[in-house]
Amino acid sequence: MLWSGWGDPAKARELPEPVRKLLHDLLGVRAPDVPAATLESVRLAPPRLPAAVLAALGGVTGPVHVSTGHEDRVRHAGGKSTPDLLRMRAGDGAGAPDAVVSPGSHDEVAEVLRVCAEALVAVVPFGGGTSVVGALTPALTPEAGAGFAGVIALDLGRLNRLLDVDAESMIATFEPGVRAPEAERMLGEHGLTIGHFPQSFEYATLGGFAAARSSGQASAGYGRFDDMVVGLTLATPAGTLELGRAPKSAAGPDLRQLVLGSEGAFGVITALRLRVRRAPAVKVYEGWRFASFAEGGAALRALAQHGPLPTVLRLSDETETMIGLARPDAIGGGDSGCLVIAGYEGTDEAPGAEVTGVSARRRAAGQVLAGLGGTPLGAEPGEAWAHGRFSAPYLRDTLLAEGATVETLETAGFWAGLPRLYDAVRLALLGALGSPLVMCHISHVYESGASLYFTVVTAQKGDPLEQWERAKEAVSAAIVAAGGTISHHHGVGRDHRDAYAREIGPLGAEILRAVKERLDPAGIMNPGALVTP
Amino acid sequence: MLWSGWGDPAKARELPEPVRKLLHDLLGVRAPDVPAATLESVRLAPPRLPAAVLAALGGVTGPVHVSTGHEDRVRHAGGKSTPDLLRMRAGDGAGAPDAVVSPGSHDEVAEVLRVCAEALVAVVPFGGGTSVVGALTPALTPEAGAGFAGVIALDLGRLNRLLDVDAESMIATFEPGVRAPEAERMLGEHGLTIGHFPQSFEYATLGGFAAARSSGQASAGYGRFDDMVVGLTLATPAGTLELGRAPKSAAGPDLRQLVLGSEGAFGVITALRLRVRRAPAVKVYEGWRFASFAEGGAALRALAQHGPLPTVLRLSDETETMIGLARPDAIGGGDSGCLVIAGYEGTDEAPGAEVTGVSARRRAAGQVLAGLGGTPLGAEPGEAWAHGRFSAPYLRDTLLAEGATVETLETAGFWAGLPRLYDAVRLALLGALGSPLVMCHISHVYESGASLYFTVVTAQKGDPLEQWERAKEAVSAAIVAAGGTISHHHGVGRDHRDAYAREIGPLGAEILRAVKERLDPAGIMNPGALVTP
Repeated sequence: MLWSGWGDPAKARELPEPVRKLLHDLLGVRAPDVPAATLESVRLAPPRLPAAVLAALGGVTGPVHVSTGHEDRVRHAGGKSTPDLLRMRAGDGAGAPDAVVSPGSHDEVAEVLRVCAEALVAVVPFGGGTSVVGALTPALTPEAGAGFAGVIALDLGRLNRLLDVDAESMIATFEPGVRAPEAERMLGEHGLTIGHFPQSFEYATLGGFAAARSSGQASAGYGRFDDMVVGLTLATPAGTLELGRAPKSAAGPDLRQLVLGSEGAFGVITALRLRVRRAPAVKVYEGWRFASFAEGGAALRALAQHGPLPTVLRLSDETETMIGLARPDAIGGGDSGCLVIAGYEGTDEAPGAEVTGVSARRRAAGQVLAGLGGTPLGAEPGEAWAHGRFSAPYLRDTLLAEGATVETLETAGFWAGLPRLYDAVRLALLGALGSPLVMCHISHVYESGASLYFTVVTAQKGDPLEQWERAKEAVSAAIVAAGGTISHHHGVGRDHRDAYAREIGPLGAEILRAVKERLDPAGIMNPGALVTP
Repeated sequence: MLWSGWGDPAKARELPEPVRKLLHDLLGVRAPDVPAATLESVRLAPPRLPAAVLAALGGVTGPVHVSTGHEDRVRHAGGKSTPDLLRMRAGDGAGAPDAVVSPGSHDEVAEVLRVCAEALVAVVPFGGGTSVVGALTPALTPEAGAGFAGVIALDLGRLNRLLDVDAESMIATFEPGVRAPEAERMLGEHGLTIGHFPQSFEYATLGGFAAARSSGQASAGYGRFDDMVVGLTLATPAGTLELGRAPKSAAGPDLRQLVLGSEGAFGVITALRLRVRRAPAVKVYEGWRFASFAEGGAALRALAQHGPLPTVLRLSDETETMIGLARPDAIGGGDSGCLVIAGYEGTDEAPGAEVTGVSARRRAAGQVLAGLGGTPLGAEPGEAWAHGRFSAPYLRDTLLAEGATVETLETAGFWAGLPRLYDAVRLALLGALGSPLVMCHISHVYESGASLYFTVVTAQKGDPLEQWERAKEAVSAAIVAAGGTISHHHGVGRDHRDAYAREIGPLGAEILRAVKERLDPAGIMNPGALVTP
């Protein structure tokens, strides 16, 4: 993973010259005059953990798994949010932990938490490091850093095993540090899949998916990650929690759903039992055109409410369709309408495939789409989407380097409220940024509502971090006011924390604080994330 | 509702003479020599609420909605568990509240809670009164009653409105005291349905479904009640909680899932936003025969994991099949195998019905069932099941009067663990009761597991309440030891509370206590239910 950006540097994407020209002419994008920092030049505070604490941590994990090295600290200084990247590019390593600790087992995690609680050391669980909401930067705010003897990043990369496959119950048990592609590879040997493919897929870990309540691109078919978790183990400073004895239960509140989305603020997920599926033999992705976002939305709603539901279902608004479909030299021309991607994964061979199979579902969903005004565009747009589905983060790096900030913002709401939510976010972005390029898509549908995912591109003006904060605050306020949730994909972290507190209200925030205080009395777990201090 | 039993006394079911003879000869059932108490003869403690508190409550709801009358107190003395009924039949009204208070709005509920918190009056939210796990009997245990100035039943029957129908989002907003049939009637006028049909359907309320995390007979098609709740309002002594801005969210823990199943121990649900469906135009129920419970279970598992899933899907074990299918004079004869009921609800007319429609799903599911050893039995067993689906509680009353205790016990687990769970419960019942009749069915299936629902019939020996407690304790211990959940349908109440605490472990129980202490600092909300004091 590129320390200051996304992914494999060898896969970095160049901007085509016409696009660069467009950004220059249309948005006023100018290349920054300060070159980006190198890893070596990132400024870090001297590590401040007492030697006795370092020794105690080394005693738990083995000294080789406790690092205070410059590169390790820089690589754990944050996630992959726009502010994270802007700070890294500026050489600002203020978010870096004092040490990186890599436990090798649940028991080591539990023991590390014990040591840290005693020594008042903040602990930031670190999986794939792909958070885009500031979930991995505890040292940044003075109030969160005060009172602590230091901060460690708890790197879960060594907890990378597939522990068990129960083919009868279709459940796989994983350690949390397994990266998604490796999980799919290991399950593939059993003919199984998790089916969770968020944009962060190539680097994110299963524990991170659970901690951030992640939603993948194929959620229509496979469900969200929170639908997949049938059991989990949480190591907390107050002890270990084991949850999940049945798929569903009437025995009290579903405490699994309290851990999912807890973002390391309650403890560390050390094992996950996931409902898995047969790996699909067939995958078909295709495109449909609708005249407008509203008409396309009505078609998606029909599929969500009455079926049949494709495995992947997304709808781009007019702007995203135009930008996405156009050749770079033709951007701005023509009426592309709104593109729907519908994907179908499964098999045509199983018993019952006359209704569950890929061909049958595709045919029937096609009838619904056509009946509601859709025009079939064939496989090409679908294949193009599938080909590029994990590549957008690379483009962000290229744009940042060019002097443009590209950011994604997302929410969800009930169907009847979506138009208002859509307008509110766009207006907030226009108000905060002047004349940015704003694109949107629906990528997750439910019977009662859907997500809205915005991509905004703007020229950097002044301090890009301040510019981002202004826009972020405006959008968050607009989402809360329009009745949406502050995040459908990305989680809360620190960037959404205050808006989230408004979303759940004072009493909801009190519940989170009560749980945190019970599980983490010293307040060492990812301080400042999720729960307002 | 019959005060000492179930339902409409006019619908009471007589035992056929051959069945009575069978119970007499096979199980040794003898009619009790003490006649059941009359409502008037139920022994109640003098109401102990101070006059000032009664006046304050009357000031909130209007005095006419505060009752200390004998009949009102008796009718709120408990739910419909076997111990509840045994106590009522014995004239023991120790569980009765000191007063019954019927608020007419959210604000009145909130104000009643304020008055009660100040005066240290315990509050038992009371919906349909159908709890079978002791969720409505706070005064029974000395430890729960100590320290309180009294107990009120908070009857939610006046909160009985359909507040809103959002046909676009397919969401209906209800007050909590609406009984299920009335909710279906009101939605029916909009062509909609909730689709939640537990055995308690005819009397239970929507708020009760949510508070007890209920599961209905058509859960395969419509989902569990916790799947249906997209938003809710909870009045607590610490204030009001409003949850649910989108179907799903990545913004932190799903606090809705903390309220669902909270059984009045955190507060009172005063509004529910439910995902609804189109009322089905077609309903088809049919029977299938499998040679064994194991073979039938494998077929249900195939449908749950790979589809297509019927709307109703249940499988009786050998004993339940034999008892259920046999004419009364032929019980004990023949090899009935195991009966599967598969029901399909929906339409054949909608776009996409070639895969979503009743006919298509029925045909395809039939292929799966036949391919796994099922023999079709046609519509008759399905129609018989549908006809009698809500009548079992009547039979329980008749059996109790005859001197037989009939009890239902249920659990759920992952598929691979179900055989062990099945054996463990049966063994526990045999050990505790000698030679009872034990029947079982699977009525709720998931990709990773299923529920097991046991019906046990035994002759009353000695004190039937003690006999029940012995058996209940043995079964609960067996379920916990075998890895199942203590309840899949019924909830926790007081009867499952201690087993539930073992299920979620000391830290899980601490979480519940922390939440309760924050929302209900005086501990007035349904004390003794759900949360171990």
